[in-house]
Amino acid sequence: MNERIREILSWYAGENPGVLTNLARILNHGRLGGTGKLVILPVDQGFEHGPARSFAPNPAGYDPRYHFQLAIEAGCNAYAAPLGFLEAGAAEFAGEIPLILKCNNHDLLYESRDPLPALTSSVEDALRLGCSAIGFTIYPGSAARDTMYEELRELTRQAKAHGLAVVVWSYPRGSGLSKEGETAIDVVAYAVHIAAQLGANIIKVKLPSEKIEKPEAQKVYQKYEIPIATLADRVRHVVQSAFDGRRIVIFSGGPAAADEQVFEEVRAIRDGGGFGSIIGRNSFQRRKDEALRFLNTVMGIYEGSIR
Amino acid sequence: MNERIREILSWYAGENPGVLTNLARILNHGRLGGTGKLVILPVDQGFEHGPARSFAPNPAGYDPRYHFQLAIEAGCNAYAAPLGFLEAGAAEFAGEIPLILKCNNHDLLYESRDPLPALTSSVEDALRLGCSAIGFTIYPGSAARDTMYEELRELTRQAKAHGLAVVVWSYPRGSGLSKEGETAIDVVAYAVHIAAQLGANIIKVKLPSEKIEKPEAQKVYQKYEIPIATLADRVRHVVQSAFDGRRIVIFSGGPAAADEQVFEEVRAIRDGGGFGSIIGRNSFQRRKDEALRFLNTVMGIYEGSIR
Amino acid sequence: MNERIREILSWYAGENPGVLTNLARILNHGRLGGTGKLVILPVDQGFEHGPARSFAPNPAGYDPRYHFQLAIEAGCNAYAAPLGFLEAGAAEFAGEIPLILKCNNHDLLYESRDPLPALTSSVEDALRLGCSAIGFTIYPGSAARDTMYEELRELTRQAKAHGLAVVVWSYPRGSGLSKEGETAIDVVAYAVHIAAQLGANIIKVKLPSEKIEKPEAQKVYQKYEIPIATLADRVRHVVQSAFDGRRIVIFSGGPAAADEQVFEEVRAIRDGGGFGSIIGRNSFQRRKDEALRFLNTVMGIYEGSIR
Amino acid sequence: MNERIREILSWYAGENPGVLTNLARILNHGRLGGTGKLVILPVDQGFEHGPARSFAPNPAGYDPRYHFQLAIEAGCNAYAAPLGFLEAGAAEFAGEIPLILKCNNHDLLYESRDPLPALTSSVEDALRLGCSAIGFTIYPGSAARDTMYEELRELTRQAKAHGLAVVVWSYPRGSGLSKEGETAIDVVAYAVHIAAQLGANIIKVKLPSEKIEKPEAQKVYQKYEIPIATLADRVRHVVQSAFDGRRIVIFSGGPAAADEQVFEEVRAIRDGGGFGSIIGRNSFQRRKDEALRFLNTVMGIYEGSIR
Amino acid sequence: MNERIREILSWYAGENPGVLTNLARILNHGRLGGTGKLVILPVDQGFEHGPARSFAPNPAGYDPRYHFQLAIEAGCNAYAAPLGFLEAGAAEFAGEIPLILKCNNHDLLYESRDPLPALTSSVEDALRLGCSAIGFTIYPGSAARDTMYEELRELTRQAKAHGLAVVVWSYPRGSGLSKEGETAIDVVAYAVHIAAQLGANIIKVKLPSEKIEKPEAQKVYQKYEIPIATLADRVRHVVQSAFDGRRIVIFSGGPAAADEQVFEEVRAIRDGGGFGSIIGRNSFQRRKDEALRFLNTVMGIYEGSIR
Repeated sequence: MNERIREILSWYAGENPGVLTNLARILNHGRLGGTGKLVILPVDQGFEHGPARSFAPNPAGYDPRYHFQLAIEAGCNAYAAPLGFLEAGAAEFAGEIPLILKCNNHDLLYESRDPLPALTSSVEDALRLGCSAIGFTIYPGSAARDTMYEELRELTRQAKAHGLAVVVWSYPRGSGLSKEGETAIDVVAYAVHIAAQLGANIIKVKLPSEKIEKPEAQKVYQKYEIPIATLADRVRHVVQSAFDGRRIVIFSGGPAAADEQVFEEVRAIRDGGGFGSIIGRNSFQRRKDEALRFLNTVMGIYEGSIR
Repeated sequence: MNERIREILSWYAGENPGVLTNLARILNHGRLGGTGKLVILPVDQGFEHGPARSFAPNPAGYDPRYHFQLAIEAGCNAYAAPLGFLEAGAAEFAGEIPLILKCNNHDLLYESRDPLPALTSSVEDALRLGCSAIGFTIYPGSAARDTMYEELRELTRQAKAHGLAVVVWSYPRGSGLSKEGETAIDVVAYAVHIAAQLGANIIKVKLPSEKIEKPEAQKVYQKYEIPIATLADRVRHVVQSAFDGRRIVIFSGGPAAADEQVFEEVRAIRDGGGFGSIIGRNSFQRRKDEALRFLNTVMGIYEGSIR
Repeated sequence: MNERIREILSWYAGENPGVLTNLARILNHGRLGGTGKLVILPVDQGFEHGPARSFAPNPAGYDPRYHFQLAIEAGCNAYAAPLGFLEAGAAEFAGEIPLILKCNNHDLLYESRDPLPALTSSVEDALRLGCSAIGFTIYPGSAARDTMYEELRELTRQAKAHGLAVVVWSYPRGSGLSKEGETAIDVVAYAVHIAAQLGANIIKVKLPSEKIEKPEAQKVYQKYEIPIATLADRVRHVVQSAFDGRRIVIFSGGPAAADEQVFEEVRAIRDGGGFGSIIGRNSFQRRKDEALRFLNTVMGIYEGSIR
Repeated sequence: MNERIREILSWYAGENPGVLTNLARILNHGRLGGTGKLVILPVDQGFEHGPARSFAPNPAGYDPRYHFQLAIEAGCNAYAAPLGFLEAGAAEFAGEIPLILKCNNHDLLYESRDPLPALTSSVEDALRLGCSAIGFTIYPGSAARDTMYEELRELTRQAKAHGLAVVVWSYPRGSGLSKEGETAIDVVAYAVHIAAQLGANIIKVKLPSEKIEKPEAQKVYQKYEIPIATLADRVRHVVQSAFDGRRIVIFSGGPAAADEQVFEEVRAIRDGGGFGSIIGRNSFQRRKDEALRFLNTVMGIYEGSIR
Repeated sequence: MNERIREILSWYAGENPGVLTNLARILNHGRLGGTGKLVILPVDQGFEHGPARSFAPNPAGYDPRYHFQLAIEAGCNAYAAPLGFLEAGAAEFAGEIPLILKCNNHDLLYESRDPLPALTSSVEDALRLGCSAIGFTIYPGSAARDTMYEELRELTRQAKAHGLAVVVWSYPRGSGLSKEGETAIDVVAYAVHIAAQLGANIIKVKLPSEKIEKPEAQKVYQKYEIPIATLADRVRHVVQSAFDGRRIVIFSGGPAAADEQVFEEVRAIRDGGGFGSIIGRNSFQRRKDEALRFLNTVMGIYEGSIR
């Protein structure tokens, strides 16, 4: 265990050795293992957006084994997916990559302004599938947010008691916020802080924009001249908002975009002190050789071997 | 155990031996045993539509023993029904055919736009009745879908822990969808994927139409030129959406129709790579000798002995 | 154990020795230990108002360890915070200061007239983190108040059975009250009484204004000439309303204010027979040396060493 | 928290903050607080040997309050007793000294070669009485030892989950050993190791003699020339056997003896790197003023103020 | 509440108010109410010795209502009996006298050297019957004693958590003791101490003889010249052995004897500081008018109105 990983684990001194072990498994796995940086492959798009929207661009992705293989070959730190996808490969790829079981999921066949995902799997499922962590989505800003926080509270209690780490997707959304407000810098910083206070070990948020949503926050950002002009500045502020950088914060890539734009974002995450990326659609919605090339560049930037 | 059955079971390598045993029991039973194709007799019509609408066309069907006999004589792979029907014959026909206990049911004495079936039996019931699987219906598109997903999550956890397989009826319905959208190809593909992600071992859906319900999906189907012109094409896409064909997907026949139309549909299912049919009303709503002749043809098509 | 602390504990003779032990730990810790007065540091602002509004004035506060250090160095009786903040320091600072786990929390990304905080941690969490008490917020006046009272009832039952003390933040708010009514003397007196009736061991309320919110109360206050002209009068009436002074009532400082104003309030709390202060923003939103000076004066006033 | 206590707590990094907090409470309490040395007063003699044999020498000891007072006035780190004795004083002396609830006890009205103590109280009792730890006796060498180990395993699991520390009395006894073998150096070293392996946080053993009980051990002690000539040597070897000194090991005083003999033993414990003493009969079986003088000398030796 | 009762209750400060309330009910009921003395009527003879041996001397006693009436008319503090007897009268005599449900019972149709009573009722039974306490018998000296202690531990935990007091019959018996040893002074003192350590609120023992059973005890009684010559001396020593008189100890009358002998014993209990008597066979095995006269004398002696 190198010094950087020891340092990161020291932030979680209150957790039991089981949780520390699983955090270490994720931090030490794959190409970025031991660097303190992470790239995680998440594939919950099928449940969230339907199979064709998710996998038609690269039909190999209809097969659940494909994503295990992609994450393993690319050297990702972990692979995150809903129950069905993990059940369909966890035995075949047992021990080859840390797994994160997404325990709630949301589909779009019924849409609402204040979404509430369904609980779709449990800590028992995560244990029998050999996972290192559970994953859970909260939507701060939704009228139903408290239900999500309370579901998370109970799952977190169970997961940690059984030695599993907890990864929270904190995605502001709902009638408490404007559409642009979902990625406003004050809102993303707030969202990462809520997840940390709820006991998350690893937190995933979206990259924040320069917008400030709440008037009360606007005053504070101006008065104290909090730097938010560049993306790196904003990443730095988000990381600071997660216990002054003492919680692992990773950023999601959002919808598929031009590669160079993604690489620029990755450089900003790196320069702002972010811990890495969770990249779904930009990874699995292209041919595998292209995806491996793409992820190779992303990891190279984090690693420092690519500028 | 022949090679095809071994191959199908390999897709479920993550399940415990109890679940594998019960999947094998279903796959190896009856006339289609060992072919990897299935014809299942479901009789939950009485609960769903009332007894007269269900059994007046063939009054022998009022007697629960009739359906056991029909399924056994026809050589079906399994017989699925609600608690009462199974309790009324499970002892007499013990060990003669794999049973699937339908654990939720919906009646029409109270109708709503966003239906939620009642939980009507349990994993304990399935165990004491000697069943091989539980059955469960979800209605993606209903405002109450999350309740169904969460009920299914808990029943699935229990069922698999006790070695039972899980069969999910995934029937889009509710205020999130237009009436025609319930069988739109994008919606059926989405529904089969959700069921697979929720951990279903066998998934039953309706035959899809050529319609596309969701605008975001429409763009994707056009861009990637997903073939959906023929029924076989659409079956192929639905099967692909269930983990690239690595989950058993069977198709329901819908309301009683002209026999030749049903046979055409069966040929499309076969040609599109579907795994079989679940045929209720077309089976039990005619005299037994006719029903046996009818099912003989269906199985012959799957088997290849009839074109 | 000095006589004053014995006297205070005698008011709680119905509690088990575990609860008494934890009350004694809080009353006997820090600079005011043994005086019967308390100053508690609460840091739930991050969850309640977002991280920038909370910590930008003194960025050292982004780090969870800072607040443990501040409370310990200032000689506070206890430190209160949500799950994440306590998990991030409870091991490192084990045994150095009594901890109070805030078990519900409210964020402002979704605002509503009748707020209901989310349950964010549990009695099990408090025990594994070595806490002396749980903390809980109720909003009398909210349409959702009964839900809070019922959640508190269950947490209180569990906490006391396991020997933990119960600290209630009783903050009138919601559609049953005018904005000014939230701190009206009749309302604050009512709120402290409700908390005491719900079994709270220590109650935190806001400093009351001279306003009377409810017409029926107005008549009574006039008829019996209840003295409420000075702040000390009002503190005295609030303390009287908490079982005639037989429950520990402490007062919150509200938003950061001029120091001399806070000191005046502390003198009024002392003169009115209040038991102390719970001071968050005025403590952690300034540089540590200033905060220590500020808290030194507050404690000096309670102690009697500063007039 | 001084450096020595931090160092000791670091050996228990796998425990949750609650357990660390309670260990810190014991290590930081009383006259030896902060030195890393402990003197604990245990009074389970009444249950073990009957009241007259225990308390007739100093009849004040019939009153349960006496032992609380003695432990508090002498400045002991903790007081350990069975349920009844703690219930009889825990409210009156709440918060004045860390308590250890002895959860099993043995009486001599029925004697057997292979004794098995009765479970006499629970983790729930310890929590409601405000204890910092549970205490438990095992008798390695008894035919019934495995029952004790298994009872301890379950109590340890519960205690630690609720943040309580675990103190184990490991007293070799039973048909597997000769009478002299009960304190043989190889046997005591073995017993302390078993307790450590069972998860004990603090272990109490008897002072070992120079005898070696087991022939296989004899060979090893000779071959590797393990120093056991002096009592300090033997204490050092016992401490080494408890995870190379990374578990707190304290030594019991045995039957009342001449004071100077006890002081010699205490010097040997100190010189051999032992962590302290648990002294029952030598403390409470004499008049209180004598007991305070006696314990003052013992603590002075540990502290270094008395040679 | 008079001062004497307040003083007695103060010994139980660690108990919850429910237990204190039920102790107060027993102490304040009947003719001796408020004196700190008790006479309890126990009728478990039917279960212990069979109905004819119990009730033939006074056939009115076959009727369960008789014993309620006797206890009420005589002004006893409480009535103790097994489940069936209490169920047969608890409704009819609801609220007329505190009830004690005997939760274990022993019959003589199977006799053994090391008896173990059967669990015959529960805390739930005691609650639904409106009892003030549970009763439980332990046999120190029996090879099966630990089973009894552990059953008592769990019943005590439940009873106290539900606000019921605990009355323990501590009757030395079994292969660890000689027949005469069952009432030897050292053994009875030991037995009362064990019951107190197990958490009993009220303890019932037999009147001790001058014999000393255990050689180790013999030495101590001689060395410290513990006075045991008279019955009053021995009662005093037994009471001292119950936490220096801070637990309520009452004495059983044993087999029916000459009245004057019983009265002599009662005077000795009174003079030795005992708290009263539990008198079964001497009460219910004679005609009611005689029994009332007999109990009137007993109570008069305790009260001081009869010498």
